[in-house]
Amino acid sequence: MFFTLKWQDSKLTLLDQTKLPTSLEYLEINTVNDLIEAIKKLAVRGAPALGAAGAYGVAIALQQQKKENWSEEQLLKSVSDLKNARPTAVNLAWGVSQVEPLINSGFESVLAKANLIAEADSQANRQMAKLAADWIEKRVTKRPIRALTHCNTGTLATTDWGTALGVIRELFDRKVLSEVFADETRPLLQGARLTAWELSQYGIPHYVLADGAAASTIARGEVDVVLIGADRIAANGDSANKIGSYPLALAAKRAGIPFLVIAPESTIDRNCPTGDEIEIEMRDGSEVLELNGIRIAPQASRGYNPAFDVTPHDLISAVVSEKQVYEGAKIN
Amino acid sequence: MFFTLKWQDSKLTLLDQTKLPTSLEYLEINTVNDLIEAIKKLAVRGAPALGAAGAYGVAIALQQQKKENWSEEQLLKSVSDLKNARPTAVNLAWGVSQVEPLINSGFESVLAKANLIAEADSQANRQMAKLAADWIEKRVTKRPIRALTHCNTGTLATTDWGTALGVIRELFDRKVLSEVFADETRPLLQGARLTAWELSQYGIPHYVLADGAAASTIARGEVDVVLIGADRIAANGDSANKIGSYPLALAAKRAGIPFLVIAPESTIDRNCPTGDEIEIEMRDGSEVLELNGIRIAPQASRGYNPAFDVTPHDLISAVVSEKQVYEGAKIN
Repeated sequence: MFFTLKWQDSKLTLLDQTKLPTSLEYLEINTVNDLIEAIKKLAVRGAPALGAAGAYGVAIALQQQKKENWSEEQLLKSVSDLKNARPTAVNLAWGVSQVEPLINSGFESVLAKANLIAEADSQANRQMAKLAADWIEKRVTKRPIRALTHCNTGTLATTDWGTALGVIRELFDRKVLSEVFADETRPLLQGARLTAWELSQYGIPHYVLADGAAASTIARGEVDVVLIGADRIAANGDSANKIGSYPLALAAKRAGIPFLVIAPESTIDRNCPTGDEIEIEMRDGSEVLELNGIRIAPQASRGYNPAFDVTPHDLISAVVSEKQVYEGAKIN
Repeated sequence: MFFTLKWQDSKLTLLDQTKLPTSLEYLEINTVNDLIEAIKKLAVRGAPALGAAGAYGVAIALQQQKKENWSEEQLLKSVSDLKNARPTAVNLAWGVSQVEPLINSGFESVLAKANLIAEADSQANRQMAKLAADWIEKRVTKRPIRALTHCNTGTLATTDWGTALGVIRELFDRKVLSEVFADETRPLLQGARLTAWELSQYGIPHYVLADGAAASTIARGEVDVVLIGADRIAANGDSANKIGSYPLALAAKRAGIPFLVIAPESTIDRNCPTGDEIEIEMRDGSEVLELNGIRIAPQASRGYNPAFDVTPHDLISAVVSEKQVYEGAKIN
């Protein structure tokens, strides 16, 4: 079918998500700089996928050190640059830090660990999908269930299966879900381009809607549950996710429907006390001012482009990881 | 500078807003069908502008009747089609109904009344701008004031000056406002294309942001007041406006900043008891699935495209018309 990222033939192969849904192209990554560039332009994105990419990136760095005779300093600088390629998603730095202690053991050890991380992510996704689907089947009485989601949290955001979108797939496989409202997710349209594409691949009926249309669709009773992923979850349960997530939580709260955050344990940052301490990546204003490379706003206009927002824990019904359901986003 | 719509040389001239900000083009409207088409494709839009357009449309119908020897039936059918060209904005039907009693008095009477409606709208805009700016200067203590707005409610949405954007202009002229956050307003980007263009013309500093970014920008304390227009206000104060308005009200409420609806008296529909009775125009899904005519979503995806949402009255700090400030959206 397709894969998000895979180590093969001594290099990392990534699905270039900037090209979807128009074309299915893979990037071959041989250098850390190429990986950083791919991460920055969002050819690979999604917190769990970035975790695996970070770990594989260290393997690439070790290969490069050998080929290009890097000093120890060059190697560490390269690993550090990779770690900081995007500031909000904790998983990227987490993935790098998982393999850092193995750098002295050499390339093979790092690669083996990176493969383990990727495999564990895939299993964790299946596990959280089951836990969350059980929770939803119990709490949501309406059948069939109609879910709303934001950004892309499927296979494309992970190494396999997905987080929030994985729960949706699980509910569909259980034959209790009828349709999905997929927010288009401006400015980069991960919903319209990636989530809609994945849902099409899986044969799950869905609508694409403008982000601003989600709240009133919820208010009119057309949605039974809202599911999102996360890029970092603070110790108090405040959750950072793709810009546009927070208003969905406000709308779900008012409508009295569950709002679930689905993310692996690696997304929980217990060193970060609250959402106020989560750094929000500000991306270039041109992403808002242009569409498909064509300027839509006047030249005098400036773009304002935060990539994430923080949903306060009191608006979250539960955080679900591969380990457990954290009711009321109470992380322990 | 520019004008939104004007009767000149025996025809209605409209600024074609679908072409902005790339080019400034005017449409010459000689038939009711051309006017209906212009209204449907949003070449002219904005509740107050539609009110004037509706009145002028009846003048066009009378001209056409004479030229094309229409029966009385054809005339009335034509006027009725115009009245129903868009279902949510009450002003279009209101504008038509204002001149309907004059149809028997002939073209000149209808045209004179249409001119009066246009002139009265312009004066009403100035008046509501003053009332609302006074209210804001009293209630918002921070200086300079930073405002957030949605869709376009400026000169382009009215016959002159604007409603919510008119208040922003008034605050800027009073030298108490520093900058504006203009939601891009998907799917048709009236914010990025029209509001940003107007603000550029007036030299008012502004940012364009994705609709999903507004709520968290408000939550982070970067906005002091939210101002929107309305397409229909029910008797209980529930207000229909461009899709994406409701989540702003939720965010403003939680942040404790004022959320104001600025609209002429003609937007208040006292025959409509609550927001539940306001018909929401569903527009073609392609507006969401395509960007600049290029498909962004997969072929299997359906678009879901409500053009408006309803903000419940309890989330509205005040409705301001040319007549008065309705505190707490209590319409009397």
